[in-house]
Order: sequence, then structure tokens, then C-alpha cells
Amino acid sequence: MQNFIFQNKTKIIFGKSVVRNLGDEVGKVTRTALLVYGGKSCKLNGSYDQAKMSLSEHGIDIVELSGVKPNPRISSVRRGAQLCKEHNVGAVIALGGGSVIDCAKIIAISAKTELDPWIFLEGKDSAHAGLPLFTILTLAATGSEMNSGAVITNEETNEKFDYGSKYMQPRVSFLDPSYTFSVNKWQTAAGTADIMSHIMEQYFGDVQGSYIQDRLAEGLLKTCIKFGPQAINNPLDYEARANLMWTSSLALNGLLSSGHSFPWIVHPIEHPISGFYDITHGAGLACLTPNYYRYVLDEKNVRRFATFAQNVFGIKDNEDEMVVAKEGIDALENFFISLGLPKRLRDLGVKDDKFKEMAEQVYTRTQFHGGFAELSINDIVNIYKSSY
Amino acid sequence: MQNFIFQNKTKIIFGKSVVRNLGDEVGKVTRTALLVYGGKSCKLNGSYDQAKMSLSEHGIDIVELSGVKPNPRISSVRRGAQLCKEHNVGAVIALGGGSVIDCAKIIAISAKTELDPWIFLEGKDSAHAGLPLFTILTLAATGSEMNSGAVITNEETNEKFDYGSKYMQPRVSFLDPSYTFSVNKWQTAAGTADIMSHIMEQYFGDVQGSYIQDRLAEGLLKTCIKFGPQAINNPLDYEARANLMWTSSLALNGLLSSGHSFPWIVHPIEHPISGFYDITHGAGLACLTPNYYRYVLDEKNVRRFATFAQNVFGIKDNEDEMVVAKEGIDALENFFISLGLPKRLRDLGVKDDKFKEMAEQVYTRTQFHGGFAELSINDIVNIYKSSY
Repeated sequence: MQNFIFQNKTKIIFGKSVVRNLGDEVGKVTRTALLVYGGKSCKLNGSYDQAKMSLSEHGIDIVELSGVKPNPRISSVRRGAQLCKEHNVGAVIALGGGSVIDCAKIIAISAKTELDPWIFLEGKDSAHAGLPLFTILTLAATGSEMNSGAVITNEETNEKFDYGSKYMQPRVSFLDPSYTFSVNKWQTAAGTADIMSHIMEQYFGDVQGSYIQDRLAEGLLKTCIKFGPQAINNPLDYEARANLMWTSSLALNGLLSSGHSFPWIVHPIEHPISGFYDITHGAGLACLTPNYYRYVLDEKNVRRFATFAQNVFGIKDNEDEMVVAKEGIDALENFFISLGLPKRLRDLGVKDDKFKEMAEQVYTRTQFHGGFAELSINDIVNIYKSSY
Repeated sequence: MQNFIFQNKTKIIFGKSVVRNLGDEVGKVTRTALLVYGGKSCKLNGSYDQAKMSLSEHGIDIVELSGVKPNPRISSVRRGAQLCKEHNVGAVIALGGGSVIDCAKIIAISAKTELDPWIFLEGKDSAHAGLPLFTILTLAATGSEMNSGAVITNEETNEKFDYGSKYMQPRVSFLDPSYTFSVNKWQTAAGTADIMSHIMEQYFGDVQGSYIQDRLAEGLLKTCIKFGPQAINNPLDYEARANLMWTSSLALNGLLSSGHSFPWIVHPIEHPISGFYDITHGAGLACLTPNYYRYVLDEKNVRRFATFAQNVFGIKDNEDEMVVAKEGIDALENFFISLGLPKRLRDLGVKDDKFKEMAEQVYTRTQFHGGFAELSINDIVNIYKSSY
């Protein structure tokens, strides 16, 4: 086990109708808040009305920023930061999924500076303050509700970068699983794949001295495997929605990452794809992940993949570990397909003419470490091709 | 899944030599601190010197309260609270295991009031403030380093009660596994049993809607089963000590408890035993737990015990679930015995003449819910007898 610091101050208020406490929590810090959300879905699932009612009951004025899209744009962040300054708001409330929350996070720190928000994503400056952030989660996927990171797309440069700061850690996150009843099958499947990818990025890392982290990761993966299909088949299954939602938070809140090191491979490889083609992030991950694993599987790491196969998918022991390992990767791919996700990037509308450009972006612009194998630009192109 | 609020603000600084940061952290809040510890062990394992050196480097004065014993006494708490008031200290630092930390927790809240500390344990009043609390853990067992609860013994009345308050949550806990290298085999075994008992108390609860919690609990139990024996056989095994230490914190920090309900059975049944006989708490739990499970095992809960047997001890499937369930309980008992813990309470010096009195104390003075079966005083006596 490596040395680590673990602290996660976010207060999680989880369960049915918990948004009724929103006004009480926000009212502890301000009387004027920016409410950030996407489109219609929060008005259909009731969260928008319930949030506004609770804020109104506590006399909190709202400034609204709507229209935040998946793969949130830096232009939305700029607009939000501007609104905060114009209206002198004292808190930011994100109502939506990871995209809305990520957008709100960068707004929260940008409201406290005259710098352009993209500066943070480019890594050219660090945040020194932030407005208090509250989130109301309506999609189980990114885990952003319980961590300090955000991913933003620059639509002018097709870049998708991430940034993290303690000033972006949500103060309180409201998790009502019933808000996800109306999430459609596709988004539920992609969200499940996204959660699993977060867990696996941490699981397939430095496998020395991560016993406790590995067992916790396997438990969370099994939760996804049990409840992902249940939520897709029966959207109103509260238990399934609740387990997925809490798993999304635990997958990326420091619990699995503390005490060992791991690369973060498939996400960086996927980012340029959703940057260029605006596809659903989780679906891109589902196409890439099994093929990345096949590409790097070798005698040195076979034990890890075999452990995954046995402990997560219950694949039977075999004298040849390599067979078990490959069966595990196949099981993962088949699980994604069973959720209704595509096997191939082409099915998402991705073309095969930008793989070189995207691979170069992965390699040169992100802090990319090779993981099990040192991946060259050519290796990344090969992984794109095998997933195409 | 039930509604819940989860928040745990304790900053965990984990790993080798981390106590060098103690002065920096304490210095953020005060220049004078009370240092609470037990006996010689913290002077032998180096933690005492390292803590004092770091505090001294940051110009922090120390008032010392030594001699805190296992099953910490209310008299030590009173002494500590008095020292805080006399010296106007601004923080309490616990250096030791759960007993020292529990004692320091009640000191931290008692320093802020003129009430007698036992008032809190009796449930006659609540804390409204507390001195900032820092802990340096030297024994992996109680999890007190990352939660807001404490258990204190009143040596005049043989009562052992618990109390919890947000003002008792440690601000920063320093977890250096190498401080536990010198923990002897007996204490390592008892600590492992204590950690496992905390996990099992939460696992054998309301088994509706606790899928994610169950899988995490099984992961933590497997960590104890792997590393408990390793730490006993090779006391200097850092990896084993580190996994046990982090498991002790995660077992009782809200992770396993959030979202479902469970009784807390074996601990209340054990408390009067260590209250009367001053035995090692974890050893008492190891004697009682398998026999309590055997006593309540029936057709209604057999599935839960069979799941435990299979997922934690890897016991093979069998057409008769009851067989699997019983094999799991036997495996647990045998595991405790393999750690060097006694099978019977009599081996701990407990006599069989106070079972009725102790059972009445359990039943009438604690908030005792029956769990799988509604336990009468007579049932509790029977569990004592079967463990004797």
C-alpha cells in the first residue's frame, strides 16, 4: 500500500424526496444562487420544480443557466461565470448529470476570477477560490457529484480536457434515485458502462499492494452487473436505480484510488472521440475497453485479468490462466452488448479517418502513461482500429 | 436502499512516517494541545517521540494525560477534561488504539462544559461543542479514528456505554501501519476479530436492499481473512498491517452502514463481559459471535448465512442451504481459533455466575433490538452459556 491522503467532505443526502432539503442547505451560505441545468429532462422528472420550490420556501433567489449539453462546452462555462458576476450569486447549484455538474464546477471557480475559464483546463493556472457548489444528480454515471474533477470540451479546438481543485468539491449532493426513472435505456446503459470504466481504470493499475482496493472494486463492479440490466429492463426499479447511483459516487470519490497507483488509460483514449464526434462517452468507453485489454494482455499481467474474470464474472478456474483472462474480457464485452451498447465505434457514427490525429492528441496533450504496456501513437491507432 | 445522509470529514493521512505532519495540522488550530496516551507501547514503537518532535518543531506546547487503559475509564476522561480546562488547551491529540481515542473523544467534548462527562454516556445530555481532535493510531481495531463514537466504562458501576457526536469526529487521523509492527500476536488477533465483528454486525442486518453494502462488506472481510494471519505470523509485514489498518477505518466510517438498517447485537452482548471482567473486547466477540449466529440461524435467515459462507469463506454450493450456512459459521469460528483466540469465554477468565445479571444489563440498559430473532433475557443467557 502506498502512502495517501484521503478526505472527502461532500455531504451526500440520498434517497426519495431528499431535494426538499435543498433550500435549507443552500440557505446556510447564500440568498442568491445560480441554477445550472440542461434541457427538458429535469422538468419532466420533477427535479426542477422540486428544487425551485425548496429554494423558494427558503427565500433564495435563482439565476438560471440552461441548455448545458453533454460533453459540456467552455462557452457554457463562460456564460455561467458571467451570470454569477452580474448577479453577485453566492452559490452554484447543478441540476443534472455529470455534464451539468462539471460545467457548474468550472463556473464555481471562474466566478471568483477575471481569468478565462479555459486557462484552468489547459493547466495554465490554478483555482484559488470557488463559490460553494451544490448538486442534484439526475443521472448515475460520472461520479462528479462526490469529487473535485471536471471534464470540459472546447468546441473551437475539439479539445476535451479535465481539471480538478478542492474548490470544485460539492458541498452537498442530493441523490434521489427516482429522478433517474426517466433516464432512457441508452443513457442507462452508457452510464453503467461509464461507472464500470471508472472502477476498471483503477483496478487495472499497479497490482502490487492493492488488495483491499481490489476487493472493493470487485464489489462495485458486481453491483453494476446486477443492477445495470435490471434498470434497463424495468426503469422504475428503485433498488436498481439506487444501487447504480450510489455506485457511481463511490467509484470515483477516492475510495478505490487511495493507496495505490494506476494509469488512467481508456478515458484519455476515448476523450478525443467524443471531442470530435460528440458521441455518448460511456458508449465510446464500452467499445474501446475490451479491445484495449486484448491489446495489452500478456504473460506479465495475465494474473490480474484472470482475477477479474473469476471475481467479477464468476468464470471458472482453468489450468491456463490466459484462457480465463480472455474469457473475462469476452464476458465484459458481452455484458456491454447485452446492455444494448454497440460493439464497434462505427456504430456510433465515428469515422476511421482521424485515428492518427486523435492518437496524437492523446499522446501529446494529456498526461498519458502507458499502463500495462507503454503505448505509442501507433499502438493507440491500433486500439482505435480494433474497436472500429 | 433506505434514505441516508453520508458525510465523513476526517482527513486520513496514511502511510510510513506520516506523523511528521502532525505539528503542521495541529498548528492550524492551536499552540497548546492535550496529548492522551496509554502506557509504554507508544514509547517503544517510536510514535510518542515522533509526535512530540513534530509538535515541538511547530512550537506547540503539550499537556500530557498518560495511563489510559483498555476499556477506558470515566475517571481518565474526568482527569483529561480537567487538564484541558486548567491549561486552556486548544486541541486534543489521541496517541494509541481505540481506547485512547475513545477517551480523548469524550475529553474533547467534556472540556467545553461544566457537566460531568458520564452524563453524555448515560444519554442525559448532548454535546454542543468540542475541542478539535487529532488521532495517531497505533492499533488496527475499533475504527474510532474515522467516526464520531466512543465507548467508556464506569468502573464504579461496571457499566460500559457508548456515545456519539459530530463534535467527536477526528479532524485529522494519522495512520502509520509501521506503528503496529510491535502489536503482539494476541492484540493483533483480537483487533482483527474486532474489525470483522464491526463488519458482520452491519452485514447480518436487514438484508433487503443492501446489495452494494454487502459486496463491500465481503471485500473487507476477505481482507481481514487474508491479512490477519499474515500479520500474526510476520509482525513486520507492512502490507498486512496496512490492509488491516485501513480496513479498521472503512469498517466503521459510514460506508457499510449507509442505506440499510441493522441491529447491533454481539457488541451489546459482549460489553457487560468486558465491563465486569476487563477482558480483551475482540476476544470476547470472537467467542460470542459464532454461537450467537448458531442460536438465531433458521429457515428465514439461512440465505444470508449461506451467502456469507460462499462469498466470504468460499464454501461450495450445496443443495441444502442450511448445510452451507452452518459450514460458514464453523469456518468463522475456526478462523478465530487459527488466529490464536479462545473458543470459550471460560478461557478468558470469565465466570458463569453473572450471566443473568449481564443479560439483564444488555436488555434493559442498552437500546437492544433483537435482530434476526427477538432475544429475551433468557436467550441472551443461553448465548452466554453456549459460548462459555
